[in-house]
Amino acid sequence: MINFRYIINILGRLLMVEGAGLALCIVIALLYGENDLLAFVYSSLITLGVGALMTFSVKVKDRVLVKKDGYFIVTCIWILLSLFGSLPFLIGGTIPSFADAIFETVSGFTTTGASILNEVEALPHASLFWRALTHWLGGLGIIVLLIAILPGLGIEGKDLYVAEVPGPTHDKITPTFRSMARNMWVLYIALTAGLVLLLSLGGMSLFDSVCHAFATMATGGFSTKTAGLAYWDSAYIQYVITIFMFVAGINFSLLHFALRGKIKKLFRDEEFRWYAAITLVSAAIIAVSLYFQQGMDAEESVRESLFQVVTLLTTTGFVSADYLQWPPVVCIILFLLLFLGASAGSTAGGIKCVRICLLFKNIYNEMKRILHPNGVINVKYNGKSVHPAVLSRVMVFFILYILLFGVGSVVMSLFTNDLATACSATITCLSNVGPGFGDVGPMSNFSHLNDFAKLFLSALMLLGRLEVFTMLVLFSRAFWKK
Amino acid sequence: MINFRYIINILGRLLMVEGAGLALCIVIALLYGENDLLAFVYSSLITLGVGALMTFSVKVKDRVLVKKDGYFIVTCIWILLSLFGSLPFLIGGTIPSFADAIFETVSGFTTTGASILNEVEALPHASLFWRALTHWLGGLGIIVLLIAILPGLGIEGKDLYVAEVPGPTHDKITPTFRSMARNMWVLYIALTAGLVLLLSLGGMSLFDSVCHAFATMATGGFSTKTAGLAYWDSAYIQYVITIFMFVAGINFSLLHFALRGKIKKLFRDEEFRWYAAITLVSAAIIAVSLYFQQGMDAEESVRESLFQVVTLLTTTGFVSADYLQWPPVVCIILFLLLFLGASAGSTAGGIKCVRICLLFKNIYNEMKRILHPNGVINVKYNGKSVHPAVLSRVMVFFILYILLFGVGSVVMSLFTNDLATACSATITCLSNVGPGFGDVGPMSNFSHLNDFAKLFLSALMLLGRLEVFTMLVLFSRAFWKK
Repeated sequence: MINFRYIINILGRLLMVEGAGLALCIVIALLYGENDLLAFVYSSLITLGVGALMTFSVKVKDRVLVKKDGYFIVTCIWILLSLFGSLPFLIGGTIPSFADAIFETVSGFTTTGASILNEVEALPHASLFWRALTHWLGGLGIIVLLIAILPGLGIEGKDLYVAEVPGPTHDKITPTFRSMARNMWVLYIALTAGLVLLLSLGGMSLFDSVCHAFATMATGGFSTKTAGLAYWDSAYIQYVITIFMFVAGINFSLLHFALRGKIKKLFRDEEFRWYAAITLVSAAIIAVSLYFQQGMDAEESVRESLFQVVTLLTTTGFVSADYLQWPPVVCIILFLLLFLGASAGSTAGGIKCVRICLLFKNIYNEMKRILHPNGVINVKYNGKSVHPAVLSRVMVFFILYILLFGVGSVVMSLFTNDLATACSATITCLSNVGPGFGDVGPMSNFSHLNDFAKLFLSALMLLGRLEVFTMLVLFSRAFWKK
Repeated sequence: MINFRYIINILGRLLMVEGAGLALCIVIALLYGENDLLAFVYSSLITLGVGALMTFSVKVKDRVLVKKDGYFIVTCIWILLSLFGSLPFLIGGTIPSFADAIFETVSGFTTTGASILNEVEALPHASLFWRALTHWLGGLGIIVLLIAILPGLGIEGKDLYVAEVPGPTHDKITPTFRSMARNMWVLYIALTAGLVLLLSLGGMSLFDSVCHAFATMATGGFSTKTAGLAYWDSAYIQYVITIFMFVAGINFSLLHFALRGKIKKLFRDEEFRWYAAITLVSAAIIAVSLYFQQGMDAEESVRESLFQVVTLLTTTGFVSADYLQWPPVVCIILFLLLFLGASAGSTAGGIKCVRICLLFKNIYNEMKRILHPNGVINVKYNGKSVHPAVLSRVMVFFILYILLFGVGSVVMSLFTNDLATACSATITCLSNVGPGFGDVGPMSNFSHLNDFAKLFLSALMLLGRLEVFTMLVLFSRAFWKK
């Protein structure tokens, strides 16, 4: 049934990619001559070694994967990535507790950006770079990277792709999807490079620029400073990062077309329209509130409202201000944004705008169905009829998301003092955002939680990154039945 | 298209039922010799007069109703009931503000039980009785009453019934559903009478017993005392009311069978099992928390946890303790119960257990569908396959409910100081429960909100009572298109 030999082979290759990433950190450690050099040498050797062992020692009989294998592999690789990725923190002693190291690594790979570090600056440069790199690798998806760079994963990679890349539909996947994976990575690298340049021009050091560019394009949120972006106190940097976060929240296939001159295709896309509309409407309401209720000047209220909306909606989670001090109406809108997420096929987490769009259209259609029970009434999206099975899955996804939020909040309420902390920690991790409300607000971190809570939130981050179903089917009886 | 003449005729008859209810309060006012006698005389005359005018002055050509008419009538009658029902408060000056009087009356008819009264005891007995009577009439549904007692509403009453009585399916509706409506009312009256007797035996005055029996069987929640049930401080009364609230949360058709000896039918019913399981599991968790974390003795923690769970799950909303002082895990469970509601076909509000059951089953089925995309996999409920259209409507209902909660919370956050108040006021009104958290907690009331917030919450109560769709279809373009 499950093709374990081939799965071990693929997992091994993915571990080698991670090992290469760890090896890259050795260069940084050498450059800065800091004390975590050995930790990265060991971590990289262990990861590369285990990866090589898995790849080359097991003889693969047939290179065939079924749907189930896809879900199994993707879940396994994300757990393995997190375990091996925490090695440098544990070996180097920069994050000595197991739960903390796992939390920080999972938060990195899932591009959540929630941290247990009380003082980020205390970390050596190589460790800071590794945190940023976990974002960058996890953002577009390490499997997508594998598909793009390694030969030997043919069309069966499609099932892996579907299991890893967010989104309700994958109609853009063609037999040439390997070249698409390559295009996506090229675009990703180009945008990251551009952002590094722009941030450097704004007065950031090259190191900080690279780390923040990784975190921005992956919609991650790890900073190299405890104060986050507030450290630089630069309107220029805030605007630049706002724009790039917004871009990172666009479907990368669409972005690929747009940057090749087919800009109309972008503006005609329904998901992009919803994404832009949600951004602008939320920011407008918040700007008005900040201007009148909070007494900010016009430029600052526009900039701060845009930044907060984009950072939470794209599930990046960079911090620029303590929004807990803002009026209730601002808080509730920011809280709701934690659920939404940007576009499918982007690096963002959350429910995604395409699903919100389909849900609204389907609600309106249900009204019509109530009035005309025998009529055939389809939901249209980008001019095409949406299959009822797709609508049904979108609805189940939303409901499951809400239920996970509810159950997660109950569990977290056992470990926190107030409901705002319990509820917001749950949703900010499930949606891979980062900051929440209460004791996990933008000026706090997750260090004060106990180990069980940290591991529970790590599981939520993984569930959210893989869009719930990928991991959850593994727990169904149907999965293990012959 | 819409048969306005016949609609006016039906609305007139329903107003006369309300007028009769108001006339009943004249008797109470005479008995107690209090100063709101004239207010009830005027209110009853106005309501009866307008009702009679509508019924007898318009000549009905054809007694045919279409589906649309059902939604239109039911929405209209609930708005009219609330407007005319607020007359005695406004005329008598017991609740002088328009928004307050509307809020209190809507809260009564929708069996919410949220109040704007700072001192309930200040009201004359007739006004207290009218509050209780609005619960009792609204509980089982005034249209069901009309169907049961008045001739001339034939099978077309079915569309009215479907629009007024909660529940996703109406498979128990047969051509003999008029006798069913009668059975339901007989059962309702019998249970209410039984409860009056038991409460009187527990030391409540006859007047208080009747008012609390009305509020209990309707899952309303208005008390005749500001302190609510805590006023009596009687474990006996608390147990009796807990049991009757639980019974009032059972599907009345099922209850009818069970009381006629077919008790097995009750225990085999899936919705009843979910309802009982949710009650017991929630109460068990809360009892453990109250015993260990709050230091209550064993009996008290069991009694208080059962009472709170049942009062919130059945959307009654009686108050016995300040649960805001209880541990976070208790608060979050109680908050989640505000969404659930008891059984369809009962007097409770909320989402209802049958929907929760179907949602869970459908999530599990979706996992199977992911693994076997071409298989035909049906959800079974009580041994029968559920039509996909029913599942789809249940999902849309849940999603719409959550969206209304979100949008409502944003609106309410404009008028409140904290998110707990904004969110809980929204859901406690939408689900027709009564008490919430924060400034609308069990020891507070809704008087401190501004008029707009009160009218907004009144609209939410009506939306919730009519299960959202009934009112919302009226706002769709499809409804008004020929």
